[in-house]
Amino acid sequence: MKAIVFDQIGSPEDVLELRNVPVPEIGDNEVLVRMVATSINPGDFLFIQNLYPEPKKPQFPGQIAGNHGAGIIEKAGRQVKLQPGTFVAFSYYNTWAEYAAVPSEWLIRLPADYPIELASQFVNLITAWDLLDQAGLVPGQWLALTAGNSSVSTMVTQLARHMGINVISLIRQAQATVDLTSMGANAIIELSKLQEDVNEQIMRITQNKGINGVIDNVGGPVTGELIRSMAFGGRVIINGGMSANRFELHNFDILMSGIEIKSHVYRYFFNPPKEADTPILNEIITISAQPGFQVPLGGIHDLEDFNRAITESIEYPQKGKHIFKISHL
Amino acid sequence: MKAIVFDQIGSPEDVLELRNVPVPEIGDNEVLVRMVATSINPGDFLFIQNLYPEPKKPQFPGQIAGNHGAGIIEKAGRQVKLQPGTFVAFSYYNTWAEYAAVPSEWLIRLPADYPIELASQFVNLITAWDLLDQAGLVPGQWLALTAGNSSVSTMVTQLARHMGINVISLIRQAQATVDLTSMGANAIIELSKLQEDVNEQIMRITQNKGINGVIDNVGGPVTGELIRSMAFGGRVIINGGMSANRFELHNFDILMSGIEIKSHVYRYFFNPPKEADTPILNEIITISAQPGFQVPLGGIHDLEDFNRAITESIEYPQKGKHIFKISHL
Repeated sequence: MKAIVFDQIGSPEDVLELRNVPVPEIGDNEVLVRMVATSINPGDFLFIQNLYPEPKKPQFPGQIAGNHGAGIIEKAGRQVKLQPGTFVAFSYYNTWAEYAAVPSEWLIRLPADYPIELASQFVNLITAWDLLDQAGLVPGQWLALTAGNSSVSTMVTQLARHMGINVISLIRQAQATVDLTSMGANAIIELSKLQEDVNEQIMRITQNKGINGVIDNVGGPVTGELIRSMAFGGRVIINGGMSANRFELHNFDILMSGIEIKSHVYRYFFNPPKEADTPILNEIITISAQPGFQVPLGGIHDLEDFNRAITESIEYPQKGKHIFKISHL
Repeated sequence: MKAIVFDQIGSPEDVLELRNVPVPEIGDNEVLVRMVATSINPGDFLFIQNLYPEPKKPQFPGQIAGNHGAGIIEKAGRQVKLQPGTFVAFSYYNTWAEYAAVPSEWLIRLPADYPIELASQFVNLITAWDLLDQAGLVPGQWLALTAGNSSVSTMVTQLARHMGINVISLIRQAQATVDLTSMGANAIIELSKLQEDVNEQIMRITQNKGINGVIDNVGGPVTGELIRSMAFGGRVIINGGMSANRFELHNFDILMSGIEIKSHVYRYFFNPPKEADTPILNEIITISAQPGFQVPLGGIHDLEDFNRAITESIEYPQKGKHIFKISHL
């Protein structure tokens, strides 16, 4: 089978190669998934650079890249209840390949007609849901969202609208392909055109109430400004660090507004889904499968096209998520 | 009665004066407390500067300063169950005075023989308990504590020892009056004598495991260094901001170590104690009343001596908490 493989830690652009490798064997509690579509995420690049915490460490030689994706169960081990033919999403290992062996507890069952561009990014939908949940907002409160054009941010925006939460979407530059207003953003701050402080603009938008939550994928000075624009008791959820720059805080920026700054760690990073999570996962499926739910994509690629897929993902992250389309449903 | 009063917002050294004012009237659900001892806290200064959030706002003219203290119930309103003669601590308003009217739900009952230097600082004991609880450490893990000489920090250190948690106490300069080692500090980092990075020193002390929690009363660059010295999943609790400086963070400093940064807001800042809190409050009383429990004081003052008390509290915070001793038990 074809797979995107690396034999050493390094920059994805340097170390990845397309290779023919054996289809993996499966154990009694595993399934063989014929991959349909997989997403390309900053986290996948961290894995390749060995920057993920334990236990997500590459095994050499021949580590297959990719940690998320969706496909059809081709073969199921003896102890597995899910039947061949079932459409599943999962976050595990070895997804940038034609087939992957996955322990059954990691699988999330999807409806047969669930869109593949959503299935391939199911990790991002769960992330968007959890980010919004962790921000802890109630209807009518204000959320500020950086990298507003990104896949996760557009999902957060649409989920927030569904919940009656007001969104201020911060973007570097507007993209013709992404209409944030139609997704539910109440205000858009375009940083490249900004004539005043972020803080001043936020205070005007929120009529001096300030923001109650921040979901930040970028970092740098803007994050400091957002934190200083918060109402009492707000929460900042850090989900990415695209900016090379740091932000600055005085302890009073945190203390006087009684805020909390948390890192978001993907809920199935260390442990597989639990039985009790099924209702939430089904709710995510239901909301995202509604016809109005938009999923802007940066690009759809074959595995052969991996060089361009990787380069565009790294260089133009604001254009949206790239996915590999590997086989048909 | 004598009281420390202010008629306008400002620096405590400028606006406070000692004045004779009427003993307050009490309502049916209030008590009149004959104040015995009250502490002088950074929070009291924030109140005088009108920097506290709602509802802690001064009322003019004639706002009495001080928000914490302990005393004896002199008179109880008709609906109050506690009897005159009961020793109580509370956080409310108007404590830097000979008498204070306090709604009964705010009172914390103390044993008759409980030391007054602890009673006057009961807010700090509760704070120390909650800071340690919020840091969420388990026995054998490492806590870093800034302003290690401070009243709250010495209390945290002793509570941490009680719970088997390792403490690294960061201080600007050692104080002859405070023996942190005898209180339970496993390591002391004296910043004025430091020859290397804080991070290097912490990694050596923890044998490269890093710290699992930070309780920070200072801020500035050291806070950034501590955050970058954390093990995965640690928590940073911000409790003060003595430094004028900011610290710098990259989003990855938070994200890659899965940490959480929280502000500590005193649990009885907005709402009075609940019935369900009694077991914890009694445990705090029991532990702190043990003979070995040390409470270094910066100074004990009469109300008349308020100028010196305030000035020394502001200029030499590292020498420990100052208290007003107002009457006998």
